[in-house]
Amino acid sequence: MPATLTPFFAARWSPRAFREDPLPLDQINTLFEAARRAPSCFNDQPWRFVYATRGPARARLLQTLAEANQIWAQRAPLLGIVFARKTFDATGKPNRWSEFDSGAAAMAIALQAHLLGIESHFMGGFDESAAATACAMDPKAWTAMAAFAIGKVGDPATLPEKLRERETGRSPRKPLAEVAHELTD
Amino acid sequence: MPATLTPFFAARWSPRAFREDPLPLDQINTLFEAARRAPSCFNDQPWRFVYATRGPARARLLQTLAEANQIWAQRAPLLGIVFARKTFDATGKPNRWSEFDSGAAAMAIALQAHLLGIESHFMGGFDESAAATACAMDPKAWTAMAAFAIGKVGDPATLPEKLRERETGRSPRKPLAEVAHELTD
Repeated sequence: MPATLTPFFAARWSPRAFREDPLPLDQINTLFEAARRAPSCFNDQPWRFVYATRGPARARLLQTLAEANQIWAQRAPLLGIVFARKTFDATGKPNRWSEFDSGAAAMAIALQAHLLGIESHFMGGFDESAAATACAMDPKAWTAMAAFAIGKVGDPATLPEKLRERETGRSPRKPLAEVAHELTD
Repeated sequence: MPATLTPFFAARWSPRAFREDPLPLDQINTLFEAARRAPSCFNDQPWRFVYATRGPARARLLQTLAEANQIWAQRAPLLGIVFARKTFDATGKPNRWSEFDSGAAAMAIALQAHLLGIESHFMGGFDESAAATACAMDPKAWTAMAAFAIGKVGDPATLPEKLRERETGRSPRKPLAEVAHELTD
């Protein structure tokens, strides 16, 4: 039987409609456990995930998001920011793989979330400087790469009409031949 | 029952000892299918994977690796380079999430490889400029992020002694509390 895609890679998606139900602590820890195991250059693990689930801390994180993201992310029970360390922990030299490696760790969270029956939505639309302040992370040392919202998938009816129409599931992808190319000569 | 880590996140690793057996085409395509489904900012899919499995093309890719990597990677049946597009496809504007998103796509490959019974090893040690030339990718438009070797795990006895000693499996990880931090106030 030919090898085929393990289904969850295609089943995972990035919803905007979330249920407000809080995530159990064991689920939250499991997400970051998955991130922790990602590979990285020199095993430097240049990622840090700062998150909030309630109270003023959560409200401050929400405020760092672009307004267009706040509209839907406000319902998600977990909000966070992923930071990439600009230099290697061991040597202090610039780490040109820091963002790439942090993306790998974020992907582990996205996949582990799906496998726990929840979903994640990573966002580029947020205020980098405000995020660093809200998370007490030194912006000279860390790049705020992405914000994220995680929770159970909710009812699209909770979204404003324009977003509801977009809540159709998986986005299309470029053809395989466009993203993977074998050198044959 | 509390949520626990889906085992393959911790079982995946980055070997240096590979078997030389060629990978079937369906396995290779499945790896890149997994990468294709990764999330990205504006769904831009800013990654490209260029690879070779044999002949002069494979030899040229091998030559772009740092010598310390060539020693072991020479046995892996698939060698490649992952590139991150510097600008958004849709707008031509700089894409600050390109490397992060490409890391997510690379992680999908690493996990899908493990789930197919093979493993991957991503490397920072390679010549960026030589890789762009070998892959016919414009270095003004694309950043060569990482090289990779993929194949079945081999016998550590095929490695030089120093590498053999390091071929002990999973590298240690920082404690969870160091990489994930909840804001509670």
